[in-house]
Amino acid sequence: MVVASQSLEELCINAVRFLAVDAVEKAKSGHPGLPMGAAPMAFVLWDQFLRFNPKNPQWVNRDRFVLSAGHGCMLQYALMYLTGYDSVPLEEIKQFRQWKSKTPGHPENFVTEGVEVTTGPLGQGIANGVGLALAEAHLAARFNKPDAKIIDHYTYVILGDGCNMEGISGEACSLAGHWGLGKLIALYDDNHISIDGSTDIAFTEDVSKRFEAYGWHVQHVENGNTDLDAIANAIAAAKAVTDKPSMIKITTTIGYGSPNKSNTADVHGAALGATEIELTRKALGWEYEPFVVPDEVLNRFRQAVDKGATAETDWNKLFNEYQAKYPAEAALFEQLTTGQLPEGWEQALPVYKPEDKALASRKHSEICLNALAGVLPGLIGGSADLTHSNYTELEHFGNFQKGSYQERNVHFGVREHAMGAICNGIALHNTGLIPYGATFLIFTDYMRNSIRLSALSETRVIWVMTHDSIALGEDGPTHQPVEHVASLRAIPNLLVMRPGDGTETSGAYKVAVSETKRPTLLALSRQNLPNLAGTSLEGVAKGAYIITDCEGTPDVILIGTGGELYLCDKAAAVLKEAGIKARVVSMPCWELFEEQSAEYKESVLPKAVKKRLAVEAGSTMGWHRYITDEGDVLGVDTFGASAPGGVILEKFGFTVDNVVAKAKALLG
Amino acid sequence: MVVASQSLEELCINAVRFLAVDAVEKAKSGHPGLPMGAAPMAFVLWDQFLRFNPKNPQWVNRDRFVLSAGHGCMLQYALMYLTGYDSVPLEEIKQFRQWKSKTPGHPENFVTEGVEVTTGPLGQGIANGVGLALAEAHLAARFNKPDAKIIDHYTYVILGDGCNMEGISGEACSLAGHWGLGKLIALYDDNHISIDGSTDIAFTEDVSKRFEAYGWHVQHVENGNTDLDAIANAIAAAKAVTDKPSMIKITTTIGYGSPNKSNTADVHGAALGATEIELTRKALGWEYEPFVVPDEVLNRFRQAVDKGATAETDWNKLFNEYQAKYPAEAALFEQLTTGQLPEGWEQALPVYKPEDKALASRKHSEICLNALAGVLPGLIGGSADLTHSNYTELEHFGNFQKGSYQERNVHFGVREHAMGAICNGIALHNTGLIPYGATFLIFTDYMRNSIRLSALSETRVIWVMTHDSIALGEDGPTHQPVEHVASLRAIPNLLVMRPGDGTETSGAYKVAVSETKRPTLLALSRQNLPNLAGTSLEGVAKGAYIITDCEGTPDVILIGTGGELYLCDKAAAVLKEAGIKARVVSMPCWELFEEQSAEYKESVLPKAVKKRLAVEAGSTMGWHRYITDEGDVLGVDTFGASAPGGVILEKFGFTVDNVVAKAKALLG
Repeated sequence: MVVASQSLEELCINAVRFLAVDAVEKAKSGHPGLPMGAAPMAFVLWDQFLRFNPKNPQWVNRDRFVLSAGHGCMLQYALMYLTGYDSVPLEEIKQFRQWKSKTPGHPENFVTEGVEVTTGPLGQGIANGVGLALAEAHLAARFNKPDAKIIDHYTYVILGDGCNMEGISGEACSLAGHWGLGKLIALYDDNHISIDGSTDIAFTEDVSKRFEAYGWHVQHVENGNTDLDAIANAIAAAKAVTDKPSMIKITTTIGYGSPNKSNTADVHGAALGATEIELTRKALGWEYEPFVVPDEVLNRFRQAVDKGATAETDWNKLFNEYQAKYPAEAALFEQLTTGQLPEGWEQALPVYKPEDKALASRKHSEICLNALAGVLPGLIGGSADLTHSNYTELEHFGNFQKGSYQERNVHFGVREHAMGAICNGIALHNTGLIPYGATFLIFTDYMRNSIRLSALSETRVIWVMTHDSIALGEDGPTHQPVEHVASLRAIPNLLVMRPGDGTETSGAYKVAVSETKRPTLLALSRQNLPNLAGTSLEGVAKGAYIITDCEGTPDVILIGTGGELYLCDKAAAVLKEAGIKARVVSMPCWELFEEQSAEYKESVLPKAVKKRLAVEAGSTMGWHRYITDEGDVLGVDTFGASAPGGVILEKFGFTVDNVVAKAKALLG
Repeated sequence: MVVASQSLEELCINAVRFLAVDAVEKAKSGHPGLPMGAAPMAFVLWDQFLRFNPKNPQWVNRDRFVLSAGHGCMLQYALMYLTGYDSVPLEEIKQFRQWKSKTPGHPENFVTEGVEVTTGPLGQGIANGVGLALAEAHLAARFNKPDAKIIDHYTYVILGDGCNMEGISGEACSLAGHWGLGKLIALYDDNHISIDGSTDIAFTEDVSKRFEAYGWHVQHVENGNTDLDAIANAIAAAKAVTDKPSMIKITTTIGYGSPNKSNTADVHGAALGATEIELTRKALGWEYEPFVVPDEVLNRFRQAVDKGATAETDWNKLFNEYQAKYPAEAALFEQLTTGQLPEGWEQALPVYKPEDKALASRKHSEICLNALAGVLPGLIGGSADLTHSNYTELEHFGNFQKGSYQERNVHFGVREHAMGAICNGIALHNTGLIPYGATFLIFTDYMRNSIRLSALSETRVIWVMTHDSIALGEDGPTHQPVEHVASLRAIPNLLVMRPGDGTETSGAYKVAVSETKRPTLLALSRQNLPNLAGTSLEGVAKGAYIITDCEGTPDVILIGTGGELYLCDKAAAVLKEAGIKARVVSMPCWELFEEQSAEYKESVLPKAVKKRLAVEAGSTMGWHRYITDEGDVLGVDTFGASAPGGVILEKFGFTVDNVVAKAKALLG
């Protein structure tokens, strides 16, 4: 490769490449291949199309950019630095992948302002993109007026071969095609290299044809390395197609410019090394020292600052006009997008008395969702094809579909993983929408990484998981969660709630909506549960609390959750008749209990009372933390079985008699 | 619908339908819709094509049948009863979905002999089918001779809309197309109904085109309700295509025959009810009482017994001839397919001394895999595009690819979930193959349901999971497992192994290969670990054991696993110098330790020694079981961070000094 005089565009592209190369080299860690190959498409996108304000990354009507191939994050950091984001100064580029830097090893929205979503686990980003585009379409349909489109932006995603191999991307893209999300534009970095080598070894399908099958508009840019016009024309053409999402396959060379490593897996995930970098500098005609960007390049990129300011100013003007003409809508829009909850919203949540009808907590959840939908304009969500089992339909709203984007019931189909990432994308649109996603608790297995990312990326998503134990009955062990509640409790920053009756379900929703920086997962029963006298919203908010107490120091403490809480309550009454003083503690949320003061914890679970029995129809994993060396757990540490739910509960020992017997056994 | 005189074929199909309808009605639970709609295709397949011996469900060269839409299991049970499987007599049909019956709510291979794989979670079955077809292709390539094809069978899968929506099916079918598995034939029950209603609400993609994009041969039977010839012709055509897997889209009516419920979601997952059943009997002209099958129908189906016996006899003759001509191959084939391990195989596993070079346990794993590949002819597997990070390549073998099916390195691409289900399918081919599947531990999140199903369905799969903690470093929290080891430990019947050095890694592999009825998951380090003096294969097999002891009763017990074990060992030495008696217990496998005798457990963790410190770079969830009320855990209960691994370990407190300090703190 011999490089003659370079155009400013070429210099800009090479600046991106070398910031990536040099940052990875300095860190001796990272992924230079993608930034080197995808720099041209990214430059064209950011330079000519992406509408954003580097000085206000939260401007509500900005285009959203997602790097689904998150390992190539130096591409994004380089562009953010060059275009003038305050969150990524040059010093942070030099601190790539170091402790507490703003430039971690994969893009993290909670670390670097301006990064929209957290990517890295492949396929999540494109599915987040579907969620972002859904949010845009929804808000546009609700708020735009013929004379004022206050929400009108694109969602651009760069994804790679890895993203396209993952099932989650297929699920999400099938949905995007179904919904006809015309403002979602995916640039597929087709570099035919994955970590194990050429994609020939495992990935020879016709990706374009597959996207056509999903109902996408598909184009191919054959020379994504140097044909900037073709890239620009394709993006322009994609924007012109308004009723379908667009996928542009852009064929590139991974590690473009590296004489010995380009087009090989070697350049994917390791520093090039000093020698090869020198050769690459020569090959690309890049004369600058590491981390030096020539003024002309920086000036060109920094035009984004003025462009962004102008775009936001124009939008502010538009919004002011909107406000004047449509004050009610404008007020609602502002309330939503600034994240305010309507005053007194929590009053919508019902509380119950013991004489109220026993209902399944999934049914109580339905009541809560519908009550909240009336007072929370941002609530939107649905189920992965189990709407009438999860009870997630908002009865006063229609279905979010092509032609009815303003509606709030989302049908995800049997696509749990995409549902998870789409909900994350909706939440990270950061415009006040409160997404919920539902399936059977067992199928959290299918969407676990999305749930984890909801917690890591600090989203307020409500995960509505029903059929939460062996008590679901006949469907048998493939459908009966056993280890799930325990394993979800192990995820940091996720509130796992297993409410025991109607009031506790309301309490769980109150927490879920109030917590703006973490998701809440509700584990809900299929079977009916009696309403208990001692339950309360306030108690739920503390994670664990006394629902029935004895006089004086308890002989034994029964700790229950969810569907087994009432067993503890009944057992306590039986024990009382036998002269045994039992306290009943409801513990719907471990995480919240751990956050209470030492005094409060001692008041609920006094250290002196070591005879404790935990009762939960799930794995005993983790309960030893609460039961002391002298306690016991009535749980389920094997797989379930196929039989009617009542039979199974009895066979597995979830009866009042057995709780009583186990409590007595503790007392010796 | 008016029914004139029915052909025997029609009667046979209706017999299947009504066994399903009546069994579901008796149970008041189950899924009649799929069996009613798919009965024609299933009848044609089982009657004309499927080669099996009902009286010997384990006949090695049988065709494999997978009901990926597992909720329709009454279809399979009906066919098994009708064709004469001893595992499903009529009494078991009447016990559908009841406690301890052989006819659970979804097909379970470990309950009902003749059911090949456990399905229900959608998409798993078709991916299992890819694994079964892979196993067939592999064994055929290794053992068949031009004059004796001893392995030569088809894998047939019935899947539905739900399976096709799930990402896992896309992943697996993309691979099947890539591999050109011509003997995999999928019948897609296209009934355009899912639980939430018409597939129009969420699933409007062109499925056939998508499968073409994967490289499949695709056909469409437009009338799957009554055009039996078209179904038969399509299956015959699919068999004739030998270089591509085949998908036959068969358009059917869910709940066919039910006047008021067919073609609606109502018939999917609930009993029809007495009135509708009566109407359905009339509509289909079915004159028989519940569970009554006319003799002519039973006789027709039971021809399968003779046909099956003949098929197996023919095969036995073929195998005898093969044995005579190719005694060495025949001996190997028998050894494999009867599940015998070569004597002394475990001698291949290396043990290490402290002076041996420190290596990452992922590297030790590579050594084990390669050592075992030399002595275990059934070992086959690979990675989800992380071969050279997971270190899973068998160096003396080539890649399993179209044209080289005899090879044993499988490249799954970035498709963890499909990899999981494919490995399960390979194991459940039940011909002695020992599959392993590898990725980063974090991405167990992407394949969790397959891992769970490997445990539930009692497979010997080895899950090779590397980069097992925050110590992986710069890739950051999206790639750093925290809760994963704990959450995997919660899965019943799964052995989770976190070996601490080379010898322990060998010990883990010894267990993994020896355990024929449960999978083993290895959590392996990215970083180098010193070899310790006290580790042993025997110790690993007990789950926990003393690697360094003090004289007399310990003041404190340090319990370590994996990459943190050596910290405990070093800390014990420091404590000793300070006059504190410390025992070090290595605990690579909780599950095995739980299975030891009370005496052994007491010998390792004496009740009297309550000062215990567990050290593991992961969630503390569950450790309280082992540390007593007076112990502590040094773990990680937050997300990780992006920085060099050594820095992170230090920041999170994984240093000898901190272990010493925490141990001392326990002693007050």
